[in-house]
Amino acid sequence: MTARPKCTIHDHHYGWDNSLPPALEVESGETIEFEVIDSGGGQFTPTSTHADVTALDFSKINPVTGPVYVHGAEPGDALQVDMLEFRPSGFGWTAIIPGFGLLADEFADPYLKLWQYGDRSAEFLPGIQVPVRPFPGTIGNAPAEAGPHSIVPPRSVGGNMDIRDLTAGSTLHLPVAVSGALFSVGDTHAAQGDGEVCGTAIESAMHVTLRFTLKKAAHLKTPRFSTPGPVTGHIDQMGYQVTTGIGPDLYAAAQDATRSMVDFMTSEYGLSPQDAYLLCSVAADLRISEIVDAPNWLVSLYLPRSIFT
Amino acid sequence: MTARPKCTIHDHHYGWDNSLPPALEVESGETIEFEVIDSGGGQFTPTSTHADVTALDFSKINPVTGPVYVHGAEPGDALQVDMLEFRPSGFGWTAIIPGFGLLADEFADPYLKLWQYGDRSAEFLPGIQVPVRPFPGTIGNAPAEAGPHSIVPPRSVGGNMDIRDLTAGSTLHLPVAVSGALFSVGDTHAAQGDGEVCGTAIESAMHVTLRFTLKKAAHLKTPRFSTPGPVTGHIDQMGYQVTTGIGPDLYAAAQDATRSMVDFMTSEYGLSPQDAYLLCSVAADLRISEIVDAPNWLVSLYLPRSIFT
Repeated sequence: MTARPKCTIHDHHYGWDNSLPPALEVESGETIEFEVIDSGGGQFTPTSTHADVTALDFSKINPVTGPVYVHGAEPGDALQVDMLEFRPSGFGWTAIIPGFGLLADEFADPYLKLWQYGDRSAEFLPGIQVPVRPFPGTIGNAPAEAGPHSIVPPRSVGGNMDIRDLTAGSTLHLPVAVSGALFSVGDTHAAQGDGEVCGTAIESAMHVTLRFTLKKAAHLKTPRFSTPGPVTGHIDQMGYQVTTGIGPDLYAAAQDATRSMVDFMTSEYGLSPQDAYLLCSVAADLRISEIVDAPNWLVSLYLPRSIFT
Repeated sequence: MTARPKCTIHDHHYGWDNSLPPALEVESGETIEFEVIDSGGGQFTPTSTHADVTALDFSKINPVTGPVYVHGAEPGDALQVDMLEFRPSGFGWTAIIPGFGLLADEFADPYLKLWQYGDRSAEFLPGIQVPVRPFPGTIGNAPAEAGPHSIVPPRSVGGNMDIRDLTAGSTLHLPVAVSGALFSVGDTHAAQGDGEVCGTAIESAMHVTLRFTLKKAAHLKTPRFSTPGPVTGHIDQMGYQVTTGIGPDLYAAAQDATRSMVDFMTSEYGLSPQDAYLLCSVAADLRISEIVDAPNWLVSLYLPRSIFT
């Protein structure tokens, strides 16, 4: 499936802005390799400590590689992006960053986990292996609105979506909001669960090869994608341990399910609360079990049992 | 794994009430078979029409079989329920009920789909097969609060949770809130996607065999369960088509993802909007892709491609 990339793009920027000059111009059908810096902007190294989380320079957070100008792309079109290949660096980090994450109130102290990982799995602790499944956390087009925009929230044109199934073989369709689309990609993750509950995944620099195809007048409201095969087949063979949150607010229900899972993992597997929370973020999936039995909805957090080897 | 049930319980009740007399008393370790009436209380038959949805008597909705008094169960304990066997009736229904469901405003008219299904799959239309995977939509203990309580919302003691992975082989732990637990089960589904977006699944009467084990002083806040194997392996071989909703409210994002999927299925597969919505409810899964990139969260709806044969 992989086509030979036309070139490698190294340029990166912080935040979205449709006035940024393109780093590269491409035709529909072309394949490009992106050198993606990790979401910490290279501030963490194999010798970093918990204290380095506090020292993080947030102006250097989440650089994205681009923008790419796609000839002929106009508002109302869609940009099809085929995920062809990921070449991860093998070094990654996961952090609890104060004020950030689904349980920010309970986990107020900085915490850093460093990873050295191979092609197939990343060891969290002896006896705990997280399968490697690389994808870009941030992938999108420039927004229609002028001026600078934070990189943090995703928007209708994509961005920091953290969709863990945008792995090699998947195809993404992104709405185009400005002439040329102005596509960028970054925030590559070696592994993540649905929800990314602690706010970070296995954050890791990597090379990403993508192919672009313009779809005229697609009038897509939000991103859409397809996967060629199972999305949990790498992790679900032994089933799951699942906790639930129940109530009228889905966000609070997701928090409750996560709290219960942290409690369960500390008692069942002897993990520290911080390690349990991190492990949920990189390996457990938030699912909405029901959203119709008013006034209470139910959110479940699925922890794959296979990570405990 | 299946133990011979001690007896079959036929008694059923409407709503939860901890003053209801037990239909049966059991010891920890016993296995019981439940005859479960469908959530329509038998009001739909193979000759029912769309108009019969309007005539539905809501006082007969969602009967549950029970209650079962478990000797020794006290508040603070957990009731372990092993899902041993499901024997579905082979007839089922899925309805759009006015005022009910995630897109109630758009789908205001009554609509009824009837199913005759086999052991493995249920044909929706020629060329569309939904795998059969039976589970109880409603399963729980009586609440601590006195008096009658609606059967519709799930609570901390379980109830109408609509967790589609409580299939044979799974083990559920339910908080006990009153002496004897007063367990009931109903609302059996032959298939459902995470979210049950239109408000109904393949609603179907069946016989359910369950084993009860008392766990003293478990102090569980909400239900927890485990599965022995993959939960999507029956449906994910060909991957997924996925739509997204993005914004500060997870409920609205889930609505947007579902709207986009209905639009996609009508244009891509030529389905009517009603059929697309029903099919999402019985076969597509709502997942929370990210819940940390403030202020916008992202909900994805995963439609398995394998149902299109």
